Amino acid sequence: MSHAIIFDTDPGVDDAQAIAIALRHPDIELLGLTTTYGNVDVETATHNALLLSELAGREIPVAQGAAGPMVKPRHAPPKHIHGGNGLGNIPLPDVKGKADPRSAAQFIVDTVNARPGEVTLVAVGPVGNLAAALQLAPDLVDKVKQVVVMGGSIREGGNVTPVAEANMFNDPDAAARVLTAGWPLALVGLDVTHRCVLTPAHMARIEAGQGELGKVLAGSYAFYRDFYQEFLGIDGCCPHDSCALAWLLRPDLFTTAPGHLMVATEGAAEGQTIFAPQGRGFIEPRWSQTPIVEACLEVDGEAVVEWITDTLA
Amino acid sequence: MSHAIIFDTDPGVDDAQAIAIALRHPDIELLGLTTTYGNVDVETATHNALLLSELAGREIPVAQGAAGPMVKPRHAPPKHIHGGNGLGNIPLPDVKGKADPRSAAQFIVDTVNARPGEVTLVAVGPVGNLAAALQLAPDLVDKVKQVVVMGGSIREGGNVTPVAEANMFNDPDAAARVLTAGWPLALVGLDVTHRCVLTPAHMARIEAGQGELGKVLAGSYAFYRDFYQEFLGIDGCCPHDSCALAWLLRPDLFTTAPGHLMVATEGAAEGQTIFAPQGRGFIEPRWSQTPIVEACLEVDGEAVVEWITDTLA
Ligand SMILES: [Ca+2]
Ligand SMILES: [Ca+2]
Repeated sequence: MSHAIIFDTDPGVDDAQAIAIALRHPDIELLGLTTTYGNVDVETATHNALLLSELAGREIPVAQGAAGPMVKPRHAPPKHIHGGNGLGNIPLPDVKGKADPRSAAQFIVDTVNARPGEVTLVAVGPVGNLAAALQLAPDLVDKVKQVVVMGGSIREGGNVTPVAEANMFNDPDAAARVLTAGWPLALVGLDVTHRCVLTPAHMARIEAGQGELGKVLAGSYAFYRDFYQEFLGIDGCCPHDSCALAWLLRPDLFTTAPGHLMVATEGAAEGQTIFAPQGRGFIEPRWSQTPIVEACLEVDGEAVVEWITDTLA
Repeated sequence: MSHAIIFDTDPGVDDAQAIAIALRHPDIELLGLTTTYGNVDVETATHNALLLSELAGREIPVAQGAAGPMVKPRHAPPKHIHGGNGLGNIPLPDVKGKADPRSAAQFIVDTVNARPGEVTLVAVGPVGNLAAALQLAPDLVDKVKQVVVMGGSIREGGNVTPVAEANMFNDPDAAARVLTAGWPLALVGLDVTHRCVLTPAHMARIEAGQGELGKVLAGSYAFYRDFYQEFLGIDGCCPHDSCALAWLLRPDLFTTAPGHLMVATEGAAEGQTIFAPQGRGFIEPRWSQTPIVEACLEVDGEAVVEWITDTLA
C-alpha cells in the first residue's frame, strides 16, 4: 500500500535519515516537506530539507513554518546534539532550489484539501505547523488520512526533562492542541525509539547505499553518535524520526494501545505526554475526555533498525 | 537497631496493617500516631487509630491533624476501596481512649524537639501534617532522624491519575513542601508497593496471629481485596503503607537511587512526583535544584510480603 505523506521536520540528524527514507521508500509518495524550528532554526531546517532532496535527485516542495513555539519562549537549539548546521557541522554543498512561497500550515491545508482522505501527516519535530494548520482549517481533522507524531513518552521518561521528550517540550501548547484534536493519530515516542539503536555497522551500510546523500547521513551521524556515547553511554544512535515512518510502513513491528492523551503545558511536568489507557477509570473524569489515539508502547527494535538499514542500503 | 517513629496515617485498610506492624515489631518504638484525612475523614482516621491501638492492648498517643488539603479543594474519600468506615465496612468495637489535645503538627514538633536527632517520621497518607509541622518549626529539617513517605511514583505511573499516586494527588502542595524540604527523606512509592502482593494465604496467617486485631485486619482486607480483584484483576492486595516500614527496617530488600524530586502542583500532571537521578543533567537547571532524596525503584516484593507476614503472624 502506498502512503501519500507530508513530512513535517526540523532536520536534524535523525530527521535527515527519515527524510532519506521518505524520499527513497517505494511505498511512500512524498508530497512535501514542511519545516519548523527545533533541532535548528527554521531557516536552517528549510535549507537542510532542500539540500537533502537535491542530494537524492528529487524536487520536493519545501514549505517553511514555525520559527518558535505558540506560547512559551523559545529554547535555544541543541547544537551539541545536531551541530550548529543541524547536520553534525559537516561541510554542506550549496542549495539550488527555493522554498514554496506558502507557509507550512497553508501548504498542509492546500495539499490535504486537494486529496481529501488520502494524505498522512508525519510530524517529527515540535508540532506547531500542525497546530497552525488546524487553526487555518479545523476541518482538517476529518480530511487527513492519519497523523503520526514522533514525540512524547508514556512510560519511558523524558529526554529533556525527567518526564518530557524534546519535541513536546519545545511546544507543549501546540502538542496539547494536536494530540487532542480528534483526528486519527499515532504517537511514536521514546518508549519505542529508545529500543532502536542504530550502530556504526548499520550506518556503514547506509553510507554505501546512498551516494552523496549517504555521505551527509554518515558524516552527521558520527557527530550525533558522540552525543549518545557521552550522555547515554551507548555506541550508536536512536533513529527517533525514522521510527515514525517505520510505524507507518511496518506497524506489525510495534505494540500499541488505544487511550487518551493529555499534554502538561505548565509547571514541573511541562511537555509531558500523559496517557490513560482506554477503558481504565480514574477519579477525575478529565482523563477520559480527550479523543482516543494509538500510543506505541513496545517495539521489535532490532527489526526496525534492520528495516531502516535495508530501506537505505 | 530500634527506630523511634511517629506514624502519620489515614487508616484505611493498608494503614491498619502498617499500624499493627508499628505496634508489634520489636525494633519499633511507636511514639505516636498522627492522623489525616485521605482514605477517610480525619475524624474516622482518629477513631481507627485509637481503635487499632486498643485492640493491640497498647496506649499510644493519637493526635488529629489535617481535615483537608493545603490549597486545592478536597476529594471525596474512596469508599469503594477502604469502605465508609475505613476498615472495609466491618462492624467495629467502641473506642475508649481519647485523642491528644494537640494538633498532629504540634505533636510532631513537640515529640521531635524532646528527642532531637532520634525521631523518624513515617507518613503514609497525604502529607499535610508534615507540611504543617514544618510551618510551625522549620528547623525540624535538622532535628528529625529521617522521613519516610509512602507515596508517589517514579516510573510506575499513578493510581488515581495516569501519573499521580493517591497520597500525593490528595495534597500536591503539601507534597511539594515536604519532599523538597531538605531533610533526609526516602520515597516509597508505587514502583515498589505494586511489586508486593499480599495473598489470602498470607492474610490467613496474619489473622491467626493477631487475636482481635487480626479479625479487623482480615475483615477489612477482604473488602479491600474485592477492589483489587475488580479493578486490577489480581487476587491479593498491595500493602502500600506496610512497605514504608519494610523500607525502614529492611532496606536491604529495596533498590534505591538518590536524586531530585519535584511535585507537579497543577495542570494535567497534578500530584505527580518527578524524579531526576542525581548527576543526570537536563536542559533546565530547575531539575537539579531540589535537595537530594532517596527514591525506591525496585524491591524484592516476595521478601517484603514474607517480612510483613512473619512480623504479624
Ligand atoms: Ca526531528
Ligand atoms: Ca494510607
